[in-house]
Amino acid sequence: MKFPLTRSIFFTGFMASGKSRIGSLTATSLGWKFYDTDRLVEEKTGMAIPEIFAARGEAAFRKLEVEVLREICGGAPMVASLGGGTLLNPEALELVRRHGALVGLQARPEVILERVNRKKDSRPLLAGLDDEAKLAKIRALLAERKPVYDLSDLQFESEENVPHHVITRRIIHRLQVEAMDPLWVELGERRYPIYIEEDLSDHADSIAEKMGCTAPYVLVSDQTVKAAQAPLVDRLRHALKGAPAFYWKGGETEKNLGSIQKLLTWMLRQGCSRKATLVALGGGVVGDMAGFAASIFLRGISFIQAPTTLLSMIDSSVGGKTGVNHPLGKNLIGAFHQPRAVIISLSALSTLPRGEFLAGLGEAAKYAFIHGRSETARSILGTDLLGWLEANAGALLRQEPQALKSLIRVSCAIKAEVVGDDERETAEGGRAILNYGHTFGHAFEYLAGYQMPHGLAVALGMRCAARLAARLGMLTPAEEARHDALLDALELPRVFEGPFDDEKAWEATGRDKKADTGRRVFILPQGLGSVTTVVNPPKAEVLEAFHAVTRGRA
Amino acid sequence: MKFPLTRSIFFTGFMASGKSRIGSLTATSLGWKFYDTDRLVEEKTGMAIPEIFAARGEAAFRKLEVEVLREICGGAPMVASLGGGTLLNPEALELVRRHGALVGLQARPEVILERVNRKKDSRPLLAGLDDEAKLAKIRALLAERKPVYDLSDLQFESEENVPHHVITRRIIHRLQVEAMDPLWVELGERRYPIYIEEDLSDHADSIAEKMGCTAPYVLVSDQTVKAAQAPLVDRLRHALKGAPAFYWKGGETEKNLGSIQKLLTWMLRQGCSRKATLVALGGGVVGDMAGFAASIFLRGISFIQAPTTLLSMIDSSVGGKTGVNHPLGKNLIGAFHQPRAVIISLSALSTLPRGEFLAGLGEAAKYAFIHGRSETARSILGTDLLGWLEANAGALLRQEPQALKSLIRVSCAIKAEVVGDDERETAEGGRAILNYGHTFGHAFEYLAGYQMPHGLAVALGMRCAARLAARLGMLTPAEEARHDALLDALELPRVFEGPFDDEKAWEATGRDKKADTGRRVFILPQGLGSVTTVVNPPKAEVLEAFHAVTRGRA
Repeated sequence: MKFPLTRSIFFTGFMASGKSRIGSLTATSLGWKFYDTDRLVEEKTGMAIPEIFAARGEAAFRKLEVEVLREICGGAPMVASLGGGTLLNPEALELVRRHGALVGLQARPEVILERVNRKKDSRPLLAGLDDEAKLAKIRALLAERKPVYDLSDLQFESEENVPHHVITRRIIHRLQVEAMDPLWVELGERRYPIYIEEDLSDHADSIAEKMGCTAPYVLVSDQTVKAAQAPLVDRLRHALKGAPAFYWKGGETEKNLGSIQKLLTWMLRQGCSRKATLVALGGGVVGDMAGFAASIFLRGISFIQAPTTLLSMIDSSVGGKTGVNHPLGKNLIGAFHQPRAVIISLSALSTLPRGEFLAGLGEAAKYAFIHGRSETARSILGTDLLGWLEANAGALLRQEPQALKSLIRVSCAIKAEVVGDDERETAEGGRAILNYGHTFGHAFEYLAGYQMPHGLAVALGMRCAARLAARLGMLTPAEEARHDALLDALELPRVFEGPFDDEKAWEATGRDKKADTGRRVFILPQGLGSVTTVVNPPKAEVLEAFHAVTRGRA
Repeated sequence: MKFPLTRSIFFTGFMASGKSRIGSLTATSLGWKFYDTDRLVEEKTGMAIPEIFAARGEAAFRKLEVEVLREICGGAPMVASLGGGTLLNPEALELVRRHGALVGLQARPEVILERVNRKKDSRPLLAGLDDEAKLAKIRALLAERKPVYDLSDLQFESEENVPHHVITRRIIHRLQVEAMDPLWVELGERRYPIYIEEDLSDHADSIAEKMGCTAPYVLVSDQTVKAAQAPLVDRLRHALKGAPAFYWKGGETEKNLGSIQKLLTWMLRQGCSRKATLVALGGGVVGDMAGFAASIFLRGISFIQAPTTLLSMIDSSVGGKTGVNHPLGKNLIGAFHQPRAVIISLSALSTLPRGEFLAGLGEAAKYAFIHGRSETARSILGTDLLGWLEANAGALLRQEPQALKSLIRVSCAIKAEVVGDDERETAEGGRAILNYGHTFGHAFEYLAGYQMPHGLAVALGMRCAARLAARLGMLTPAEEARHDALLDALELPRVFEGPFDDEKAWEATGRDKKADTGRRVFILPQGLGSVTTVVNPPKAEVLEAFHAVTRGRA
């Protein structure tokens, strides 16, 4: 089993809620032992429970119950079904809490009645009553025991038409999710987790439910992902209760309001209400568009990001920016809409084109340069991000899961820290350092007629920024060399291959839409691991910096 | 003057910030006296200030200063320009705070230098210095005195190219705004005021600035408003620093995503940045659309509602719902986006068609029926809303400003209370009572082929709801009569004029998009002044209730 559980599982629930059947199925699935505490007490005493009550009294019975509990808790993890009154005993409750998870099973009164009648179950509590009286009695008993069931760590409904093995799988998946250690993006009421594992497609529903998302689920993706990751798409849809799927063609050209309208129409035709949850599976474009659609559908519904590219795993997982392009510019229409969860399956990277994978590594290198020495990086990696990247470049290029997992986690954590209080990007500064490499990078994109991947343009831009910083005395030659060596180790480009022209490049640095009019704002390294803003550096120095990647220096 | 000021105004500020000139212009505008405390001390002693300092010392001067301040504060409200050190004396500061508003004037150091040089001003502090040294000295002095200027209630910049009389008008307008008593919608960080006056078009910029909005301003309205309220539109644009205006044709047919895209394109062409503020002038459709555009332009910019219909003044001022229609249904695309302020000019109602005005009164009656006995209503009206409406129906129909002002204020306050914690309409119940009259009302709209104004359909719907409540024993015959008599007094329709059919009407009550499938949910009065939810009342009773307005009973 890919996500091994290590703690025992205790089931509690009303009669006919299925706790014995589901409990034993759970045990079988996990290869664990299953116990029924009532049966254990009977075996131990050789008496039926009513006899024990009659002969020795309830206190003696509760003592026996704790004894058997203590015995089964003493060994390997197991599954136990508890008696109706077990948890009323503080000693028993304490044992359960210490040794495992308490799972409550619920069923609607009508379902309980139906099951009791079907089995011709001769429960003494309901003996001699007609259906209406039985139902009333079931309701009364459920209300009476609610405080006990509410002690559960997790509650599941044993629904009428859902087979027991399906409920069992749900319970196991949910316990596996509970045992995971996601990175939390702290946004008060809107805080959400980022789960990073090799393959989480089977667990998407459990994560969604944990975060309060509700069915119906709809999956939004694009044709590229559909073709490259068909098994993942299928398993994800299956986990999301057979979610219908909508596929864009993919790419920036359809990132516009018209495409959003198409998705909204499709969602309405699927009968989505405000309870619906949208799951975005794809790269940055899919995430931006699907997130924006979720933000304006019926004034906002829940959505989950399931990024499939390394860049989107690192970049779109944190920040809450969603939107589409306008004919007059990129990302001019949009909203801040935070996902309820981010679900990252590293297996999606297996079919990612090499250039896109490298662009993601470039983004991670950017975090190393802007904030890599932070306590956040140290607490996750045990070292600073720069040194870690140098040591793990090979493992990353080989896509070793453990290395990727650490890389994505630390990058998201740093971005969350930088974005910090500035959730809606209203403050000056703050988020601006995320634009490291962008002033030069935008110029390269412009010079290449926007035929160059953004991530690779930024990687070149960071080389220029380091060059400029070195010329301005902000970086020593050794630091600049180390900066560029890391980009080399990550196999990021060293040379701008497009047509280069000093005047056009200079002009382009003054056009960044994020810059104030007439000002050239550069984010430059101040030592390795932190950056600062430099406004209007001398033209000659800027051009020299460009030449670092245009004149065969590399 | 329409908004008379009653408290004195004290100006403080650096040399050449214009406080004497602007102070005396302010006094002239208000017909008040102007004093310069330094001059008063000189007159009183017959000595120039440096002489007083030399001969008697600073303590004596400060004492004289307080004496003259006390003298001028003793009479009618006036305008005074204070000396540079006056506020350092706690006694003087206390006098100023007690008797009026303290206005700080600021100017950029370069502007101060330019003014000082232009006037060949021989300020001793700057004597004998070259321009660079003067500028440095000005900067140092400004920094030193900042804590004093920060004591101001309001700060204004005396800009280079803005004439003094324009700054004077801004100051007076802002002081008038400060003296107004808006209704605040309490939403934590997003709390905003609703200003209700006869005509606020000249004060829109002052309200916007008070709420932290920034230029450039853009006005969004429709052709109907442009034609009917041309002078108001002109004055509003003038106040908003010559805001460019965008006009939709008007009406539901263009309430779609395509029209939003047109507005966004226009705003981009106008050079709007994220600092821009959108002002929506019009009825509910304009407010919904413009607010939605503001919510998605560059991921959200500030917007201000300036409603022009009685219904939108009451209904759209509170709740933050914005959006457009989708071919598959009304308001299916949208966002929750709270305005920074609501600016209501009652004069806009003068050209409103009678039917639309009555629809607004119907909305107010709804508040009387659902929550009219609340403490909120009493605290604003001194009585419950129902009794107040009965007593003021005539004044309202004559559009007497004082009556309208109270009506809008109390209605907005009640809506704010009902919407309450449920800002994003996530809870069940809560906001649902706002749908009083809607289940029947939607049926009338459907039967009339959607050719009937929503507000009037709801008014008929309320009559039916009262009838049904009476039949179910929730309303006494006397209460039902009083309910309907209020609607009569407000000249709301008594009879459904369209084609009526029992089966179609019954069917239509089961189709409300806000109702769960298969359930008919009616909000019915439980006594007058509060309502409750009734699910699936008997068909025969519902049909009888319809007949209250279809069978000539009225």
